[in-house]
Amino acid sequence: MKQFLSDNAASVHPAIWEAMRAADEPQAPYDGDTISQRMDDAFSQLFGRDCRAMWIATGTAANCLALSTMVQPHGGVVCHREAHIEVDEGGAPGFYLHGAKLLLAEGDGAKLTPAAIRAVIDPIRDDVHQVQPHAISITQASEYGCAYRPEELAAIGALARDRGLPLHMDGARFANAAAFLGCSAAEAAGPADALSFGFVKNGGMTAEAIVFFDPALADVALYRRKRAGHLQSKGRFLAAQVLAMVEGDVWIDNARAANAAAQIIADAANGRLMHPVEANELFVRCTAEERSALRAQGFDFYDWGSDAARFVTAWNTRQEDALALARAVASL
Amino acid sequence: MKQFLSDNAASVHPAIWEAMRAADEPQAPYDGDTISQRMDDAFSQLFGRDCRAMWIATGTAANCLALSTMVQPHGGVVCHREAHIEVDEGGAPGFYLHGAKLLLAEGDGAKLTPAAIRAVIDPIRDDVHQVQPHAISITQASEYGCAYRPEELAAIGALARDRGLPLHMDGARFANAAAFLGCSAAEAAGPADALSFGFVKNGGMTAEAIVFFDPALADVALYRRKRAGHLQSKGRFLAAQVLAMVEGDVWIDNARAANAAAQIIADAANGRLMHPVEANELFVRCTAEERSALRAQGFDFYDWGSDAARFVTAWNTRQEDALALARAVASL
Amino acid sequence: MKQFLSDNAASVHPAIWEAMRAADEPQAPYDGDTISQRMDDAFSQLFGRDCRAMWIATGTAANCLALSTMVQPHGGVVCHREAHIEVDEGGAPGFYLHGAKLLLAEGDGAKLTPAAIRAVIDPIRDDVHQVQPHAISITQASEYGCAYRPEELAAIGALARDRGLPLHMDGARFANAAAFLGCSAAEAAGPADALSFGFVKNGGMTAEAIVFFDPALADVALYRRKRAGHLQSKGRFLAAQVLAMVEGDVWIDNARAANAAAQIIADAANGRLMHPVEANELFVRCTAEERSALRAQGFDFYDWGSDAARFVTAWNTRQEDALALARAVASL
Amino acid sequence: MKQFLSDNAASVHPAIWEAMRAADEPQAPYDGDTISQRMDDAFSQLFGRDCRAMWIATGTAANCLALSTMVQPHGGVVCHREAHIEVDEGGAPGFYLHGAKLLLAEGDGAKLTPAAIRAVIDPIRDDVHQVQPHAISITQASEYGCAYRPEELAAIGALARDRGLPLHMDGARFANAAAFLGCSAAEAAGPADALSFGFVKNGGMTAEAIVFFDPALADVALYRRKRAGHLQSKGRFLAAQVLAMVEGDVWIDNARAANAAAQIIADAANGRLMHPVEANELFVRCTAEERSALRAQGFDFYDWGSDAARFVTAWNTRQEDALALARAVASL
Repeated sequence: MKQFLSDNAASVHPAIWEAMRAADEPQAPYDGDTISQRMDDAFSQLFGRDCRAMWIATGTAANCLALSTMVQPHGGVVCHREAHIEVDEGGAPGFYLHGAKLLLAEGDGAKLTPAAIRAVIDPIRDDVHQVQPHAISITQASEYGCAYRPEELAAIGALARDRGLPLHMDGARFANAAAFLGCSAAEAAGPADALSFGFVKNGGMTAEAIVFFDPALADVALYRRKRAGHLQSKGRFLAAQVLAMVEGDVWIDNARAANAAAQIIADAANGRLMHPVEANELFVRCTAEERSALRAQGFDFYDWGSDAARFVTAWNTRQEDALALARAVASL
Repeated sequence: MKQFLSDNAASVHPAIWEAMRAADEPQAPYDGDTISQRMDDAFSQLFGRDCRAMWIATGTAANCLALSTMVQPHGGVVCHREAHIEVDEGGAPGFYLHGAKLLLAEGDGAKLTPAAIRAVIDPIRDDVHQVQPHAISITQASEYGCAYRPEELAAIGALARDRGLPLHMDGARFANAAAFLGCSAAEAAGPADALSFGFVKNGGMTAEAIVFFDPALADVALYRRKRAGHLQSKGRFLAAQVLAMVEGDVWIDNARAANAAAQIIADAANGRLMHPVEANELFVRCTAEERSALRAQGFDFYDWGSDAARFVTAWNTRQEDALALARAVASL
Repeated sequence: MKQFLSDNAASVHPAIWEAMRAADEPQAPYDGDTISQRMDDAFSQLFGRDCRAMWIATGTAANCLALSTMVQPHGGVVCHREAHIEVDEGGAPGFYLHGAKLLLAEGDGAKLTPAAIRAVIDPIRDDVHQVQPHAISITQASEYGCAYRPEELAAIGALARDRGLPLHMDGARFANAAAFLGCSAAEAAGPADALSFGFVKNGGMTAEAIVFFDPALADVALYRRKRAGHLQSKGRFLAAQVLAMVEGDVWIDNARAANAAAQIIADAANGRLMHPVEANELFVRCTAEERSALRAQGFDFYDWGSDAARFVTAWNTRQEDALALARAVASL
Repeated sequence: MKQFLSDNAASVHPAIWEAMRAADEPQAPYDGDTISQRMDDAFSQLFGRDCRAMWIATGTAANCLALSTMVQPHGGVVCHREAHIEVDEGGAPGFYLHGAKLLLAEGDGAKLTPAAIRAVIDPIRDDVHQVQPHAISITQASEYGCAYRPEELAAIGALARDRGLPLHMDGARFANAAAFLGCSAAEAAGPADALSFGFVKNGGMTAEAIVFFDPALADVALYRRKRAGHLQSKGRFLAAQVLAMVEGDVWIDNARAANAAAQIIADAANGRLMHPVEANELFVRCTAEERSALRAQGFDFYDWGSDAARFVTAWNTRQEDALALARAVASL
């Protein structure tokens, strides 16, 4: 089986395994261990400015926990209509934000723009009958694998600042965006106040990180993480995973590899692409018959609605598999 | 350093590592993988009756998720005044149960009795001004390391059934209770409707389990687990840990080892024990000076209030360390 | 000033005042008084079948409290994109439903159809990543003053039953719908499991009612009403208002009067109406200049977006004012 | 029947009726009317400093709404073990505070002291495993009818300030406390940041007030009131009640009358009193037989546990009834 189902399902990078084995010494529980204690420094170094970082088991928890520090229960979060928090988190935002509301905006490739955000928030009457925006959330790379350019981020950040709204970035595939943009982590995060930095899709096992560029938010998040049952007692095994990724270049190398595999396929699928391929996901128009044909050749992937397929590459997608898929798509 | 701080902090059993390595094949994400799919069977076999089991990262999440399937937001949970859910979960029950209330009962050794439960629920006026009980939660072994005997469980179960209250069991140290009682898992769980079955303190790494003996509760819990951000995408690594524990005898062997180490110390500390030692925790009366003396000899442990110390043994506590502590305590 | 701003703002019907004065005897507090105790009977008589009714101060509380008995916190409510619960309740559904989600459907005149409901719920994957529907909510008359015909209600009811979804009806202007349809209260409620029956817009002062056709829901609602701070200690003054409305014909007479006034204006505004006028609200296309002209003539009303005005009549709208507005609109 | 059941059940003061009748003019809905708009000024005058006031239907909603502006969902509120918010609000604090926890303190007469508060908060470990205090709530007069002296309030206020905890005052019988103390409203409120000012038990009908001495809290409360379904559309009828009370002396005159009636009984019940009588409640030790004897003489009241009775006087308790009860109690 040639696997293009999800980077979620890929195996774990050797550096992760090594770091976890090395962490198997008795240590203070929770995040009192020496490995967890290194996280703030590691991310501050990566982003070139003071930040606070904490491990967390899933992207859903990372997103919702980060937002819960920004949004009061009676407020709202502006996000894209196809944002993961709206579509695929089983109501977790409603849970973590205690009933706060997602305010849905439009935009190509599941990306927001200042205009799209204004189209949502400007018509909201400033009275108690309507839910007021308390934060903005964007996804880098977006749910359709599109990356925000630094200047796009700057424009959104300017609007956010202007309206007094903190900015959250869902970075489930943040590394893929940075790899595509060829920029630093700091540039790919732009003016975000908090970033859900994804590792599990990028060769990790069971650890993501939330990075807070505003320390006041981090203080609250520590309490909320425990309260959500996400403060693991052997947290050193999560910290080890995260540090293995960011203290070296594994995070960006893995993303580059996944992106490169995606580009091989993208070149072949050009006329069929629903969105530009800027990360490691491809949304490819094809009929049910065409999808059957691909599956018959051993390719595993999800349908995307009735007229398309989604292919996702991973850090360890074999070049030969990518080439095979490229050829197969080209000859459909 | 001779480690008696917490079983939380101990290292990971080799069988766990092996099972995790074996799980490092690409698989369907979340709990669609073949390992997660084996959990219901494995626990049904262990308990000798149909049950549904799901992995979850922490005991706090296990407890609160289980309770959230039993308790409506306007209800209450009867538990001991020193129950972990009341004292040490950072408000997680309030979060997961959407504001439901803990109704606090008394009892020696942090154990409940039917009389103690009735003393809490009988005075509650059956009107809308007072929070009505919706469930009971007990801890096996208790927060003070005391095990409920099967007949004690049966009596609580009879009361619970009589009042229409589902019964939850916090089994953070369930294996230690079963080892002490010398009984089957089924006997140690008694009439519980849901059990938080702890593994992390017993040689695991990052996976606990919730076992539902009522399948209707499990159906709800699946949605609530995702909504709480606890549905990990590479869940097979958690399933592997849990199965490594329960498909063989690791769970009970590890607990026996920890209990045996605790008994060595208990024998020496006899006159100082605050509670009978029936699991792997010892609560030992001793002065601040005595604690300093012990620490000076290289023993690591927590103070318990101002007049006592808590020692916890683990699956891999070395006999020589237990003996050393026993001697040290005896000569205080 | 000729008042067409809102029926919300109208004065109180004399029968209400009388009933309230008559209630000013010391009585058991909360809903233990003899007046509150009459409510179940009064509504059972009105609807021709057993039902349970409770007073509540606002329509927002009525809607959300009713829904909270139908929807678990991890579920969703199908409603129209312009439903009051979505647009104008300040996030109350998120609060009362503990983060459950509104699933938004389309439909002319803010009315739902089975097809519109299916278009929302059928694409929802039956997995834990997406919020599953737990109930349907419709508004009778709709937010645009359109009434559901009994056969439309039956069709929605059939779908609801088929999918196992309870049906809630927001009846802020339920009386106006019944008056327009010329049918009984039971026919206007159709297969609803719970009805928010509005009185405040129809000549009442501070009391609405929730009517439960399923007694199990009512049992839960009693606890939730107290928990929401809505169990007023002198509840007899609310019960008195509600009974003054429904034990006689005040509820339907007042609605007929308001509807009749609206029809006078509708006839004159014919070409400008955005929606058929079936209750006491008119949505009339007109420019900013035209609205200024109307205001200059002493008419008070809300703008509706940039190209329309909303006029609302009330139980006590004077015929001469309606005629005056009709003339003024006709001569725009 | 001679009524000593509850001041909750008494009839409505004529000044309230008058003010409500006067309010029966069409006006802007919600709190946009001219009467509601007068509230800030009226309370600022009463308290001799700038404050913000809003009407609300019940004391439960007043308490919980006020606290919801002070306490984050992961925090706690220090209150007395017998506080109304703990004992008699049906879990409303859990609902309004999104699962925040009540931290229970001891104290004679249901009053807190700095020592009692410290005994609760000082042992709380400053870590994420335990719920941290976010606010303090006291009741003036207390649930046992005891009034805090200005110097007691000052001492609690000093502690609150020192620990950075806002102070809430449940003033369901605030007027009775002020009447007893013979002091101004400002002195009776002391350093409270928000006060639930009760009127319904004091001759009102359906309106209490929340008074915020910190305007930032009031801004949040406006959104939360709507979200809780407590923003009534004909709010002018609530505002009218409240203003009728505080723009003249009705609030204090009514309380003096109720207190005076209570004193008549207190003098006769002296040896049997469980608590000093400082407001309008009496807790009187008496056997079941004695209670039967009193009821046989036409006195209506609640049992208080198995060995006592609670008598409550109201603004309109007739002197002859109070004297009759005094005689009856004296001759038990």
